[in-house]
Amino acid sequence: MQENNSFLSILPLGGLGEIGLNAQLWTTPKALIMVDCGMMFPEEEHLGIDVIIPTFEHILANQDRFAGLILTHGHEDHIGAIPYLISKIKTSIYGSKYTLGLVEAKLSERNLLSRARLIPISEKTKLSIGDIKFRFFPMTHSIIGCYALAAETPVGKVLHTGDFKIDKGTEDTVLAPIREFAGDEGIQLLLSDSTNIEAEGHSSSEEDISKPLQDLFETTKGRIIVTLFSSHVERIQKILDFAEIYGRTVVVCGRSLHNNIQISSQLGYLTLPSKIIMDPNEIPNLPDEELVILATGSQGETFSALSRMIMGSHRQFAIHKGDTVIMSSRFIPGNLRAITRLIDELYKRGASVFHGGSHKIHVSGHGYKEELRAMLLAAKPKYFMPIHGEYRHLCMHAELGKECGVHPNNTIVIENGTPLILYQDGFELGEKVNVEPVLVDGKGVGDIGPIVLKERKILGEEGVVIINIVLNSHTWDIIGGPYIITRGFVFEQSYRNMLNDSKNIVYEELDELEKYDRELFKDKLRSGYRRFFKAILQRDPIIIPILNFV
Amino acid sequence: MQENNSFLSILPLGGLGEIGLNAQLWTTPKALIMVDCGMMFPEEEHLGIDVIIPTFEHILANQDRFAGLILTHGHEDHIGAIPYLISKIKTSIYGSKYTLGLVEAKLSERNLLSRARLIPISEKTKLSIGDIKFRFFPMTHSIIGCYALAAETPVGKVLHTGDFKIDKGTEDTVLAPIREFAGDEGIQLLLSDSTNIEAEGHSSSEEDISKPLQDLFETTKGRIIVTLFSSHVERIQKILDFAEIYGRTVVVCGRSLHNNIQISSQLGYLTLPSKIIMDPNEIPNLPDEELVILATGSQGETFSALSRMIMGSHRQFAIHKGDTVIMSSRFIPGNLRAITRLIDELYKRGASVFHGGSHKIHVSGHGYKEELRAMLLAAKPKYFMPIHGEYRHLCMHAELGKECGVHPNNTIVIENGTPLILYQDGFELGEKVNVEPVLVDGKGVGDIGPIVLKERKILGEEGVVIINIVLNSHTWDIIGGPYIITRGFVFEQSYRNMLNDSKNIVYEELDELEKYDRELFKDKLRSGYRRFFKAILQRDPIIIPILNFV
Repeated sequence: MQENNSFLSILPLGGLGEIGLNAQLWTTPKALIMVDCGMMFPEEEHLGIDVIIPTFEHILANQDRFAGLILTHGHEDHIGAIPYLISKIKTSIYGSKYTLGLVEAKLSERNLLSRARLIPISEKTKLSIGDIKFRFFPMTHSIIGCYALAAETPVGKVLHTGDFKIDKGTEDTVLAPIREFAGDEGIQLLLSDSTNIEAEGHSSSEEDISKPLQDLFETTKGRIIVTLFSSHVERIQKILDFAEIYGRTVVVCGRSLHNNIQISSQLGYLTLPSKIIMDPNEIPNLPDEELVILATGSQGETFSALSRMIMGSHRQFAIHKGDTVIMSSRFIPGNLRAITRLIDELYKRGASVFHGGSHKIHVSGHGYKEELRAMLLAAKPKYFMPIHGEYRHLCMHAELGKECGVHPNNTIVIENGTPLILYQDGFELGEKVNVEPVLVDGKGVGDIGPIVLKERKILGEEGVVIINIVLNSHTWDIIGGPYIITRGFVFEQSYRNMLNDSKNIVYEELDELEKYDRELFKDKLRSGYRRFFKAILQRDPIIIPILNFV
Repeated sequence: MQENNSFLSILPLGGLGEIGLNAQLWTTPKALIMVDCGMMFPEEEHLGIDVIIPTFEHILANQDRFAGLILTHGHEDHIGAIPYLISKIKTSIYGSKYTLGLVEAKLSERNLLSRARLIPISEKTKLSIGDIKFRFFPMTHSIIGCYALAAETPVGKVLHTGDFKIDKGTEDTVLAPIREFAGDEGIQLLLSDSTNIEAEGHSSSEEDISKPLQDLFETTKGRIIVTLFSSHVERIQKILDFAEIYGRTVVVCGRSLHNNIQISSQLGYLTLPSKIIMDPNEIPNLPDEELVILATGSQGETFSALSRMIMGSHRQFAIHKGDTVIMSSRFIPGNLRAITRLIDELYKRGASVFHGGSHKIHVSGHGYKEELRAMLLAAKPKYFMPIHGEYRHLCMHAELGKECGVHPNNTIVIENGTPLILYQDGFELGEKVNVEPVLVDGKGVGDIGPIVLKERKILGEEGVVIINIVLNSHTWDIIGGPYIITRGFVFEQSYRNMLNDSKNIVYEELDELEKYDRELFKDKLRSGYRRFFKAILQRDPIIIPILNFV
């Protein structure tokens, strides 16, 4: 199709049409690399599933050519699936020092560290992989060590923003390398974070929450308990600093906070205050007004430090009257109910609660519309593909692209699995390939599919009824049962009569059976029972006939 | 305890510590009445449950004294449980003409209408029940026919606000009867809606959204599809009016909209435009620009008109490029995921979507903090009990009460089941009684309890494994099986070997059995299998051993 046979194919494995699971495969004639390798938390319909990861089949099918994984930053939706990748393939991982610190902890924990070559990159790095030259531009986000990828490819300049925001007043600094990269003609392709496109205007900056947070430290008499994302080093530093200023001792509670603070301080990203206790077993007896407890549990997780302090199952601390709880983090929509309950329980125990929804103590890490506009205007892309967002976010971001001068034919809204193939003088969309993500349940990776999930849904909502009968294999006389066993269906004591009555279905179906066919009899039992329960209870459990012939 | 033996006991059956299920029992020496009889939609943990209703046991235990049900307004969280009440007890129901219109439809549908005496009330009504005299003050909310209850009781004046907001500029009109009721001394007890206490300032008024809505009608070229709450008559009227102005024919799609529009127009609350089609089978062939479709589905409900138009299963309409979809309603948090998906699907089909989150086309029906303050200042209560809200809302509203002059000892934050007993010169909290709400699943009312729900949770997340063995009842020789049957557990084909291996557990447990005890053997099988699956898969399904002895 093209005379020049250069190309860059970008296959989104996740992150388009969803928040999370960010992962792309970049292919050129001389390179095959992965950009980010994120996971996603299960939705309501993913019953019993622990995490969702991208498929690696397109990498495994081209193992010999695979040149490694480049990471924009260290959030779980960008690095969370790495252990699953590394358990399948040995490879190189490129990322900032901090990002790799988090990856290292993840891989060590699973004894996989030796299978990966961790190669730190920085704004000074020039990385060549095959026919692509990468540079890394520092971006502001809710985690440190965050980069945009600037790639010189055989078909032109490509910028992948990663996740980003642009704090007020820092626009020139943040965008300078991008403007320089773009030059007068602009870049060929921009891939840009769409998460907050629906938010008009400009996001607040991390600095905007310093005053409200400090005010809380200034005025609070009793204990202060702070929850936040454990990877938000900048926010943690702020809390540590206020603790130092107000002479409070910091106690760290919860594994992920403990690990992240350790990694960050070892790497020099976090300055610990003079009084910090990493092991809550070692707390001296301090009056409430001299304590700050940094606790995990910002999303209402059942076994987090904060939840345990509420429920009375935490070894060192229990929430009591006069406590001030500061929740300095985003409430992820799927966790809203759990968080709400947690806040209610805090109130019931006499604590005061401050959160981002009610007080200005949290800001988003994703740029609002005007920041996304500034990015578009700095990069001046010929082609524009919005990434990282629900489908409507991508559409709205594409609209913004048009406002910023991208030709309407050159905004590219695609779904996971559709490869964008970029040429020097145009693009096309490749044939959609299967990138169905992989469900992880316990130790099982990928064994749970739609059939099992559908069974779980019915089991969970309607329960199961087992009809067990022992029959003479020659005469088909019933010699045991029918026994009716139920789980999750009805409170059996209240429905004993109904369950006994239901045995008539067995006798009737057996009487009317045209021929002694076991599968046919099971089918008849299933449909007979379903009709019976629908009529009496308007319920439709899973029916399992178990026939034993002796 | 009190010399004067007058009292008013208010027992909250629901609505405190939750949004929904609003229902209270008011008891005096001479009266027993219910105020509101709402339902609540199930939470995530209520697997398979259709709706949740208050317990009626305290009413049924005092049937002879029960004098009826008074309704503040016609939303489901205030009237939804009425059919369940009326199926248990014949009684009188007091409410506005519009509220009773909705109740009548509900009862007719279930053939229960003859069991209830529907008695309309208005702002002119003076209703005496036992020793309580009720008057009804009109309130603004997101439904018409909405009243606050002003009660003169043996222990003083009590005001129950119902749900309310106070549109800007209408404060004097709305609050005038309350100020008059309160007089100079103020009232004895205020029960006030806490839903929006977290929202600072003043809510926007219904009028504020007229302009943005009209702008959409003004500028839209193609079809307009509007979703909203079908009981929001004022909002529906607005849409009908704009349709009339812009010469569009209105087509009504979806049963609840159809019913509500019919009831409202029959009662004179809704003026239908000249061109409206209530039966979508009768639509003439009209160009897109002459159509407004009013469709159910504002919460992303799977079988709503809008969802079916998207999925291609609606008989008359399918969403196509150029459609403009206006979602003029609140997104209930529990439905957010479904709504988000619906919006994404609309975008994928080329529609434009406008919703309250992105455009000013919806306002809340519950007053913000300053409106709640105005209510407190108008009623000047001696005692103040916040109602209708999560626990934190009640606490925050109580704080506002103190700011408005209620003595800190006189703000009353209680939970469902704790009766507030008010005297002329004080109050006390009665002993907590059981008001555990009743779960409705299909035709079963109250038969699903914690045990069944817990089974459903495990079944839904982990599945079920049945181990079926036929044994000789004398020798305990295995003569059939072991057969392993699973549902919702694993994809059996991938795990056939594991399931076969698991049979060794049966042989081993049988070998090691100390005595031939059927229950003991079942216990051993259950624990053996659980250990096996935990070790191999980190999963813990429900294990059901089924032993047949012949």
